[in-house]
Amino acid sequence: MNTVHSVREMQARAADARRRNRRTGLVPTMGYLHEGHLSLVRLAREHGDRVVVSIFVNPAQFGPAEDLDRYPRDLERDLALCREEGVDTVFAPSAEAMYAPDASVWVEETALSRGLCGAGRPGHFRGVATVVAKLFHIVQPDVAVFGRKDYQQARVIERMVRDLNWPVRILLGPIVREADGLAMSSRNAYLSAEERVRARRLYVALREAERLAGAGTREAAALRTRMREVLEAGGGVDVEYAEVVDARTLEPVERVAGPAVALVAARVGATRLIDNVELGG
Amino acid sequence: MNTVHSVREMQARAADARRRNRRTGLVPTMGYLHEGHLSLVRLAREHGDRVVVSIFVNPAQFGPAEDLDRYPRDLERDLALCREEGVDTVFAPSAEAMYAPDASVWVEETALSRGLCGAGRPGHFRGVATVVAKLFHIVQPDVAVFGRKDYQQARVIERMVRDLNWPVRILLGPIVREADGLAMSSRNAYLSAEERVRARRLYVALREAERLAGAGTREAAALRTRMREVLEAGGGVDVEYAEVVDARTLEPVERVAGPAVALVAARVGATRLIDNVELGG
Repeated sequence: MNTVHSVREMQARAADARRRNRRTGLVPTMGYLHEGHLSLVRLAREHGDRVVVSIFVNPAQFGPAEDLDRYPRDLERDLALCREEGVDTVFAPSAEAMYAPDASVWVEETALSRGLCGAGRPGHFRGVATVVAKLFHIVQPDVAVFGRKDYQQARVIERMVRDLNWPVRILLGPIVREADGLAMSSRNAYLSAEERVRARRLYVALREAERLAGAGTREAAALRTRMREVLEAGGGVDVEYAEVVDARTLEPVERVAGPAVALVAARVGATRLIDNVELGG
Repeated sequence: MNTVHSVREMQARAADARRRNRRTGLVPTMGYLHEGHLSLVRLAREHGDRVVVSIFVNPAQFGPAEDLDRYPRDLERDLALCREEGVDTVFAPSAEAMYAPDASVWVEETALSRGLCGAGRPGHFRGVATVVAKLFHIVQPDVAVFGRKDYQQARVIERMVRDLNWPVRILLGPIVREADGLAMSSRNAYLSAEERVRARRLYVALREAERLAGAGTREAAALRTRMREVLEAGGGVDVEYAEVVDARTLEPVERVAGPAVALVAARVGATRLIDNVELGG
């Protein structure tokens, strides 16, 4: 397995793979890999001759009051996991290698990124879209794989690929959960034992929404109310949003008619967690 | 020569060229081709096995009060000129083929595009950067050629390529002028005989700046004043700006020390014209 830190070297490898007509699958990550990431690596392997995993904690997608500095990092462990999964190349650049001091070009999605996490994290999706654009140009993938846990991010990237006519196929991998239902996330490492118990409520709330919708509840307001009740029962979970949106536009719906998604974002202690479930229609 | 209107077909041709390791040179244009464009085609041919000319009057780079509807168009003539120059493929999509009705992703340059034309044409460079990003993904060029007449545009695109790590080499072709010095532009077709005479003042003003700088004038204010005097002498030329900027940052300079550029934008009748000259340093 190659570990590449230099943008130029990664681009040379990409050009070489192109010349040899090898299909590249890319899994962009911020590292501190867990089973969710590894499932995406396996999906990438099914669709490429060669799998590249990028590991980059992207400063541009963190707000000034967010957890950039304390975001968990363990490159050695990540490399070992990638090696076990048969990854061909890990691309792990520094922030200095990725952003010029006078960087001034940004990719901005202006519709799907407004609500949900975009409302609470201004600039976040601009940072995400920009770094993914850069990674696509550096790695030149044929296929790129993202997780459904970051549902809004996945939709923003699909839209970016569509609107900028990128010759890249986007694949989404399913949410991987702990035994008790908590969605896997590198940020789960922040949780104390007590918080870890409370964090499960995100999953329980979404299951409730799924159950109610499955049993015929169509009023989104009823689903939102019920999710909030579950999240807030017992205290210690600070809800940022508990939403039901159209799966295509990400706009809140009044009734669950077509494909919809229930999404929650909440703070458990200092840790912000998100999760979602597709409701069908 | 192939004429392609479909994005999908153009992308298939790009993928095919990549597979066969043929180097592609792209010349993005808005059509109504003149000798300036054709010189860029020749430059592209020197650097590619295959030349693609795109012809697309990009709605996203025109303001609501600008000349999108009356912008000159003559596809048959353009195709004949491209055929004569040995162009391999002309890509001439419709606006509907290029932009989805709910397009929501934009590429934004936030430093170099603020002043000069960016100040008078809000959204213009966002439209330019976005359509060039799209064309790069559709045509997959190894080299792309732009004219120095649109100096700020060229710098914005160079910055976009740098900041988004595009594996594309940008080449700039020199300004091609009419016998009397007027920079060639598709918009010159708008000028009446009388306006055509007045339009020459843009060139005369820039030559004056070049002459003064060559003779040792370092104060940018003196150069600006003199350019304005030349432009306004006799009336009928409405100056938008007459600037001297740093060639790298495009910020106004006080003194011409390093590489600098003198740029003018002015309205002659209803026609907005631009021109520039590099002052060295």
